[in-house]
Amino acid sequence: MRGAFYLGNKSFRVDDSPPLPPKTGEVRINIAYGGICGTDVHIYMGHMDHRIKMPQVIGHEMSGTVAEVGEGVTEFKAGDKVIVRPLIPCGRCPACEAGHYTVCHQINVLGVDTPGCFQGSWTVPAETLHRLPDDIDLKLAAVIEPAAVGAHALRIGQVTGEDYVVVIGAGPIGIMVALESKLKGARVLISEINPFRINIAQEFGMEVVNPKETDLPAYVSEKTGGAGADVVFEVTGLAPGAEMMTRPARSRGRIVIVGIFAEPAPVDLGRIMWRELQVRGVRLYDAVDFETAIPLVAAKAVPWERLISDVRPLERTQETFEEIERGANFMKVLLDCSD
Amino acid sequence: MRGAFYLGNKSFRVDDSPPLPPKTGEVRINIAYGGICGTDVHIYMGHMDHRIKMPQVIGHEMSGTVAEVGEGVTEFKAGDKVIVRPLIPCGRCPACEAGHYTVCHQINVLGVDTPGCFQGSWTVPAETLHRLPDDIDLKLAAVIEPAAVGAHALRIGQVTGEDYVVVIGAGPIGIMVALESKLKGARVLISEINPFRINIAQEFGMEVVNPKETDLPAYVSEKTGGAGADVVFEVTGLAPGAEMMTRPARSRGRIVIVGIFAEPAPVDLGRIMWRELQVRGVRLYDAVDFETAIPLVAAKAVPWERLISDVRPLERTQETFEEIERGANFMKVLLDCSD
Repeated sequence: MRGAFYLGNKSFRVDDSPPLPPKTGEVRINIAYGGICGTDVHIYMGHMDHRIKMPQVIGHEMSGTVAEVGEGVTEFKAGDKVIVRPLIPCGRCPACEAGHYTVCHQINVLGVDTPGCFQGSWTVPAETLHRLPDDIDLKLAAVIEPAAVGAHALRIGQVTGEDYVVVIGAGPIGIMVALESKLKGARVLISEINPFRINIAQEFGMEVVNPKETDLPAYVSEKTGGAGADVVFEVTGLAPGAEMMTRPARSRGRIVIVGIFAEPAPVDLGRIMWRELQVRGVRLYDAVDFETAIPLVAAKAVPWERLISDVRPLERTQETFEEIERGANFMKVLLDCSD
Repeated sequence: MRGAFYLGNKSFRVDDSPPLPPKTGEVRINIAYGGICGTDVHIYMGHMDHRIKMPQVIGHEMSGTVAEVGEGVTEFKAGDKVIVRPLIPCGRCPACEAGHYTVCHQINVLGVDTPGCFQGSWTVPAETLHRLPDDIDLKLAAVIEPAAVGAHALRIGQVTGEDYVVVIGAGPIGIMVALESKLKGARVLISEINPFRINIAQEFGMEVVNPKETDLPAYVSEKTGGAGADVVFEVTGLAPGAEMMTRPARSRGRIVIVGIFAEPAPVDLGRIMWRELQVRGVRLYDAVDFETAIPLVAAKAVPWERLISDVRPLERTQETFEEIERGANFMKVLLDCSD
């Protein structure tokens, strides 16, 4: 079987990657599709070289089928369709002791800290697996992981069907947050400036405002009888998003930080105080978030396939990352790992 | 009776201020002491001239005795010791409709938007009054208002006796937050750089660290077994406090913004996301916060008199504000309004 090995210096080599027989408590999966995540792009750019043991197969968004199970594994059998929750918390740090596994101080993220899923065969601990319905389309199943990120953000943000939700940034995660909020019954407004992303959001039937053309806070105020948004999701990780996020929120409204900020950004703490706003950071997901996301995707609650910009063979890994680096208009690209 | 009228341009005039007979639902109070608050200093500096109808008596921290009651007022009688919660929410805006009166969009703050307490006699709606115990020292009672600010911050920050609390900034409000957290049984660490404030905090038996001399996050980590603080209160309103506040907090820890930020400050949103931190803004107080603060002060739970740097006649209003502007080492100065 083949695997895409990250070599450092913005380069991959696709090479033989022999299947690893599962040890006790492990499962070997035949990977169907691997999705390219922003984290993978950060790895490609060299931002995370201190965590990678090169050459290393990366990737952590996937779908697949159980090939064989190790000793002691009774919950899964060959042929089961599965997805991996690619986290192994340490279980011993103060965050784990408090039950906050997603913010474990020494978390092992599969595909970052250890080998990942951009290969034909992947061997992982059984406790990281979630079972999928037998009839699920494995292409769609590859978007469950980002849907679980969205489910986690909605859970921490306590989104309900009564809420008016603003989502700043309609990349793959932002659009997941928006779609899942709408599926909960919330009124949802997306703030986005990129025409490609605006178009996709509108294809999903979402309301989109370009904040360079429309006064977003005034628009939200008008739509909410002067109250403001119940929940604002910041999903850009950029300073203009941080500047905007406090402005449309209602008194005691919730702001959820989903975007990854590489550096401190100016925030209007005066307004946070003045309106008693609540800000919550969210990271990764818990098992329950996968259990929320799986039926949403399996039931085709929305046409998830619109999020998949292309499906490519593993051999095209290098050129795909280069295209992404050049700013190609992709939402989600899947690598076909099954060859 | 006399009153201290703000004239604009950093000047006060102490002049006759005739008592206003209480109308229906109102109470006239003989003011004992008025405390000078940071907001009063902002008014003196001209920052709030758009809200003041000059010449206007200002001031909203006080203690006093009921002089007479208007028609329909049955809960109070002449001679009752009282304190005013100087807020009249509009009752109609979206924040009020949601029950969030402290963040009313058109709140009337007595002493800012309408005449205040730096005068011998003050007539206010009965619903703004809280009754005090008959034997309370009216000098101490004048610090109940800032204690209610602290009580509100603790309530929103959900401080418990199990918590490790860091308070950044030991001005009058910061020290209230620290003292009240300690009274709840929490372990409390104050971060402060001003020697005068460090000294007062230590006189109260509080642990203080100067972050210019000690690595505060490392110190907190060591004291909490690597976990970090459960709650961090930012009470400076300044950029170094905003920079510090995210660093000592534990995973999913609470950061409470109490300080008034005049402009946006850089915040490490990456860490807020990485540790799933919670940030809450707090403003003013509700009635319940006064009911929490009154017994703490009445019972002399700590030697509150240490917070009172001086008691001065109303005639010295002008020179006192000038001293504060020059950076005088005051914690709380009371104006004796009873002459």
